[in-house]
Amino acid sequence: MGASHINIALADFSAKIVEETSHPFDIKQGPQVCLAEASRILHELLNHYGINIAQLMAVGVGVPGPVVTDAGMVVSPPIMPGWDGFPIRKSLEKEWGLPVSLNNDADLGALGEWAYGAGRGEKNLAFIKVGSGIGAGLIINQQIYGGTTGSAGEIGHLTIDENGPLCSCGNRGCMEAFAGGHAIALQARKLVESGKRTLLSNIPTENLTAEDVAKAARRGDLPSQEIIMRAGTFIGIAIAGLVNLFNPGAVIIGGGVAQVGDLLTTSIRKAVRERSLRASEQSVRITTAMLGQRSSLMGATVQAINIAIHDAVERKKPDSKTEFSAKLNQAAPT
Amino acid sequence: MGASHINIALADFSAKIVEETSHPFDIKQGPQVCLAEASRILHELLNHYGINIAQLMAVGVGVPGPVVTDAGMVVSPPIMPGWDGFPIRKSLEKEWGLPVSLNNDADLGALGEWAYGAGRGEKNLAFIKVGSGIGAGLIINQQIYGGTTGSAGEIGHLTIDENGPLCSCGNRGCMEAFAGGHAIALQARKLVESGKRTLLSNIPTENLTAEDVAKAARRGDLPSQEIIMRAGTFIGIAIAGLVNLFNPGAVIIGGGVAQVGDLLTTSIRKAVRERSLRASEQSVRITTAMLGQRSSLMGATVQAINIAIHDAVERKKPDSKTEFSAKLNQAAPT
Repeated sequence: MGASHINIALADFSAKIVEETSHPFDIKQGPQVCLAEASRILHELLNHYGINIAQLMAVGVGVPGPVVTDAGMVVSPPIMPGWDGFPIRKSLEKEWGLPVSLNNDADLGALGEWAYGAGRGEKNLAFIKVGSGIGAGLIINQQIYGGTTGSAGEIGHLTIDENGPLCSCGNRGCMEAFAGGHAIALQARKLVESGKRTLLSNIPTENLTAEDVAKAARRGDLPSQEIIMRAGTFIGIAIAGLVNLFNPGAVIIGGGVAQVGDLLTTSIRKAVRERSLRASEQSVRITTAMLGQRSSLMGATVQAINIAIHDAVERKKPDSKTEFSAKLNQAAPT
Repeated sequence: MGASHINIALADFSAKIVEETSHPFDIKQGPQVCLAEASRILHELLNHYGINIAQLMAVGVGVPGPVVTDAGMVVSPPIMPGWDGFPIRKSLEKEWGLPVSLNNDADLGALGEWAYGAGRGEKNLAFIKVGSGIGAGLIINQQIYGGTTGSAGEIGHLTIDENGPLCSCGNRGCMEAFAGGHAIALQARKLVESGKRTLLSNIPTENLTAEDVAKAARRGDLPSQEIIMRAGTFIGIAIAGLVNLFNPGAVIIGGGVAQVGDLLTTSIRKAVRERSLRASEQSVRITTAMLGQRSSLMGATVQAINIAIHDAVERKKPDSKTEFSAKLNQAAPT
């Protein structure tokens, strides 16, 4: 579940996605409405595929907020009003009669890229999700590291300049206030209003988004490229901090704005090279997500497989895995 | 081994320190001179205590540089010229005929405080060593986290202000350039030269150190207190970044300058409260090291006990632990 979209995938035990769907979605409508909507879309997908929910082994769920994994809920989620403390996992387990896992979406992005993408083989890595907000998921010793209360990875709120612009979190000079989607859109509006020659002047200023800037940059619009590169520098300064603190083997840039590709990663790499200590800088790969927009979805798949296996072992059904694959294969339209 | 002192402790298997010694030491003299000196002091201590080196089970060693644990050496250590790539652990194991562990001193500080100090019971914590440089040791999932190449925890080089003062690492606006011992001493010199009324004017400006400022602050000197509090604010901004990224259960402030106590921790706490996201800020304890200057020494003791047990198990000597305690008790002067 994202802020504005819900993506659901049906996968087998080899993590092959056999069916996938994406729908507009408003996480601000709260748990009752959203979980009912998620259920409806899941059942639609299953019906289309001709299988019954009882044939599923487990569901992996991701949300854009800090998750307390053991409790299966989010705590003080900034962009999920009404969800604070709601028993998401228990509620879905009850409704679906299946084991459910709940994780933060950036954490799942890190897991997805680690298992099937740009982070394969790394022991420690960070996945940076660049969207309207900027968050990180961390893999430490080959596992999701969520921190003490599930709110690790808030790289967007590292102070870059203590006298910098005001951030949505209430502080000044956070990285997100320089380089998040909102900040990029704001700079684009200022650019257009300044009367400079830019592709962006074709779009009504009030509608301008970071995605528009990314698109224009890809089409060769120099002022848009400058905005993206400047954002990359600020993201890079914060990543340099993360690299100095955490000495990861890889930093993987994902999320919507990251789709702009080389332009962003090049300026990120430059800032990290300039601002990290040599030992850590030389041992870190900085790269774009290999799974594109699918990083978190693949992470949710990994989690679903993990809990399905765990559940099967717990129930002493050593053949459940095979059974499920057989079920799914039987159910597959040929 | 520190930059300017070597501390050696003799401990039993309950981590009780039975003998302890501290000597001036210059790590810049390189591995040959320093390791010979360490050996000499160790043998002196053992002679004084009336036991033979063969009666020891293991030695835990700490150094002020980034350690690659598996290799038992430091890599690109900024304040250990001549040590880069020298096989410290192997060389000591050969000389002493004992299993030796090698770790970074801030990592050992974190381990010491976690096992016997202010961090007991925490799953994840950071130990901040405030001295001429400022580094952090991290405990993640109840283990030292050294990062991919042993250089995690470099909190002193987080960018606080990208246009700030030049740091020893070559970048601008690092936290250490605002709040490290050198920066504090520099501010003290400027203070005295400004002619302001301060206890520090009794000391020749060229000799002024951060310790002098800490002492004067403890004696109630307001301008010195202001310098310490300002340093605390910058340290706090960087710790807020660490808290946002790692969501630890505790942050423990140690090292020489930290001995000034409440004044420093109060301003650190204030900055962290202001600049961390609520969920992480509310779940973190910020406190002073409980073991004072002994945090790293206790961490080295933990490591020595760990490898002694590991070694005993490897050699299939299940009674070694008891044997050693018996030996040590026999050797103890009564």
